[in-house]
Amino acid sequence: MNYNSLTKRHIQDLEAIVGPERFSTGESNLELHAKDQSQHPSIRPEAVIWPVSRTEVSEILKYANLNLIPITGWGSGTSLEGNPIPVCKGVVLDFELMNRIINIREADFQADVEPGVVYQDLNEKLRHKGLFFPPDPGARATIGGMIANNASGTRTVRYGSTRANLLRICVVLASGEIIETGTRSSKTSSGYDLINLFVGSEGTLGIVVEATVRLRGLSEEFSAAIANFSSVEAAGNAVFEIIRSGLDPASLELLAPECITIINKEKNLGLKVSPSIIMEFHGATRKQLEEVMEMVNGICGAAGCLEFRSGIGRKERDDLLKARHELAEMIKRNHPGRSHIVIDAAVPISGYPEIISMARQEAERSGIPGYTFSHAGDGNLHLLFMGKTGDDKEWRIIDEVNERIVSKALAMGGTATGEHGVGIGKRKFMEAEHGKSLVWMKKIKNLFDPKGILNPGKIFP
Amino acid sequence: MNYNSLTKRHIQDLEAIVGPERFSTGESNLELHAKDQSQHPSIRPEAVIWPVSRTEVSEILKYANLNLIPITGWGSGTSLEGNPIPVCKGVVLDFELMNRIINIREADFQADVEPGVVYQDLNEKLRHKGLFFPPDPGARATIGGMIANNASGTRTVRYGSTRANLLRICVVLASGEIIETGTRSSKTSSGYDLINLFVGSEGTLGIVVEATVRLRGLSEEFSAAIANFSSVEAAGNAVFEIIRSGLDPASLELLAPECITIINKEKNLGLKVSPSIIMEFHGATRKQLEEVMEMVNGICGAAGCLEFRSGIGRKERDDLLKARHELAEMIKRNHPGRSHIVIDAAVPISGYPEIISMARQEAERSGIPGYTFSHAGDGNLHLLFMGKTGDDKEWRIIDEVNERIVSKALAMGGTATGEHGVGIGKRKFMEAEHGKSLVWMKKIKNLFDPKGILNPGKIFP
Repeated sequence: MNYNSLTKRHIQDLEAIVGPERFSTGESNLELHAKDQSQHPSIRPEAVIWPVSRTEVSEILKYANLNLIPITGWGSGTSLEGNPIPVCKGVVLDFELMNRIINIREADFQADVEPGVVYQDLNEKLRHKGLFFPPDPGARATIGGMIANNASGTRTVRYGSTRANLLRICVVLASGEIIETGTRSSKTSSGYDLINLFVGSEGTLGIVVEATVRLRGLSEEFSAAIANFSSVEAAGNAVFEIIRSGLDPASLELLAPECITIINKEKNLGLKVSPSIIMEFHGATRKQLEEVMEMVNGICGAAGCLEFRSGIGRKERDDLLKARHELAEMIKRNHPGRSHIVIDAAVPISGYPEIISMARQEAERSGIPGYTFSHAGDGNLHLLFMGKTGDDKEWRIIDEVNERIVSKALAMGGTATGEHGVGIGKRKFMEAEHGKSLVWMKKIKNLFDPKGILNPGKIFP
Repeated sequence: MNYNSLTKRHIQDLEAIVGPERFSTGESNLELHAKDQSQHPSIRPEAVIWPVSRTEVSEILKYANLNLIPITGWGSGTSLEGNPIPVCKGVVLDFELMNRIINIREADFQADVEPGVVYQDLNEKLRHKGLFFPPDPGARATIGGMIANNASGTRTVRYGSTRANLLRICVVLASGEIIETGTRSSKTSSGYDLINLFVGSEGTLGIVVEATVRLRGLSEEFSAAIANFSSVEAAGNAVFEIIRSGLDPASLELLAPECITIINKEKNLGLKVSPSIIMEFHGATRKQLEEVMEMVNGICGAAGCLEFRSGIGRKERDDLLKARHELAEMIKRNHPGRSHIVIDAAVPISGYPEIISMARQEAERSGIPGYTFSHAGDGNLHLLFMGKTGDDKEWRIIDEVNERIVSKALAMGGTATGEHGVGIGKRKFMEAEHGKSLVWMKKIKNLFDPKGILNPGKIFP
């Protein structure tokens, strides 16, 4: 596609839509929207706009579509695959100001929100009502960004990804047309499901300007435990057996020893340095959870667990969860002069022991600092490499490891990306993963955005 | 669209693809594929084909697409909105012979199946492994048909509809092209979600020839109860409060007294004739379920419950479930000379007491035999009318009631169809429900099936 660079005229026209205080071509604003939390190179947009209404978004898109100006949505820039980097420049729409929680309908377990709402802020508000919005990618992600990437996290093993917690969206299409799709009913068989087309499309099919999300009741009781193992393989097997048992964990995370070392150093938690499973179960009664914990203890024991510590209190649980969420940031801090990449493949759970073991071996063999951790209960591996910035040789090795792991995951019937999205870095795997259905994805892209103005340069190879 | 009637040449060519024993233009076969379980008028196809492989399906579609011959998929004909009635004639593809359970991957909680597998047969096979495929529309539906209609049923309140239990499909498109989409990983953020486009599309976008379904572990323990109320309104309120409590029922059905009368008559179960909630909870331990039942008893009591009977054993539970599943058939048997229609609107749960109360009043006022029951926990109302066959006046009244109830449901943010699909009967509500997004559904239809050969005359007004 040939896009137009912003002319003086474009700038005047776009600025006129929102007014000068919410339009910027200033260096620092462009720089702030040039890069997410990935290692992909910065690319500055030509302008940043902070819309406050769907009407403004619609007018901007209509104009951009007529004038062939790329439009990239921006939540909080916490994504990990360059998803919102404006690689073809143009305009970034920052949804910071569209952050109203429009309506919490407690009785229906639903909330209507604008895309700029940070999910932790929503959950803080919901806590007092005994409710929560389950997907928790960890970073201070916005709900718009979570929808764009179909984000998930530590609670997904029980409560599903963003997709499973979304009922209705209002979307501005490339032409500026505004459509609403989905229903507030908890189920429907009415017509085609358009909502799921937009979820995970990374802003390439339309811009979500409002969403009705599904809420869940905060569990009356929880029970958390840590299990230590002598090897990642043994821990991987325990994960598989816990899932197979049908005990329905609310989170099931595996951390390799190098991650525990970092957590101890930064958070002073004094955890035993070994491959560890951190898990949590939700339930209505203490009694029930005690029984569950006994069963899990048995499963871990049979898988060769060295130590099983249950009965972890709320404070320690929160500290562990926080440490898990901040893990990537802590790792980065400990490797100055290096950049990171997170391999994010996911496999059917029976393949999990094999893929985690492979990742571990690949990391060791590479000689490059590599951290293996994962949303194990979902079969979602993370291998975070810290490659020397600018060292082509190291990055070539990392690339090769990435390709081997993704190829292995695909051969097992898995996916190149469990939760971070395709963005820039995983476009090369799309053909292998989707085969001929990739052509149909492209056709859908062309149907909704024939001029290709929406987040160009993403998803498709 | 202008379709071609089958010529001698067409018949020869199509028969040559599958051989004469799996091709029929015989009267009785045409008649058997002229009607589902709805009241919509029979329309015979011109030929019926029983394919055994995706290659055959592909060849048939390729030929039909070139020759403008309508193709309608057929599972077991148990749908309720005329979904597989071949209104433009042409060829019906009956998937009876594509009924292999290809692979049960217990460890991954997944099975690969052909579309003709009847879900009860799959569950019978899975029972011995302690697993089940949760959606249970009741009738002897095939998995292909369930995907086409996004079917759901008594277990959906806890385990989701067909959509939520599907990971991967293989689809033959109108052109004959075969694509595979989805993943065997339990989650993914890779590319656009095509799988959900096909779910609920009633065979108008492609023909599913293989599916990977998600399985669940059979619960260790269950607990069932019946609660009787003095009015449908009071029972509706109890439903709302049970859902709001977050106690997570595995089924929550509401039956109005006229339904209980029929069940007692046909099944001799001796149930108390009053508005009744039949419910079931799943859990890991007896203890836990006893606590849950106590809470539910309290909720029902506060809502004015007349009698609460818990501790229902397996046999009685199975009898109740069976009676619930056969309810529509029993009602029909009791009204010879009358035809039925099931109103299937669904609303956010807070609106449930109001819609069930409205349905009840409408049924009474109409003077026509009307039975109110519902998958209450999903806010999914069923009002089954038995209108005198051929009596235009009665059917006009029924139509008006249907329109008032659906309008009310839509005004509440609900849907015209919770689980039966649009088929023929609900096309008229699509514009009101979907607004401008209906235009985009049509565009997607045109993208996947530009000649309109796939199940024409459905979904779109």
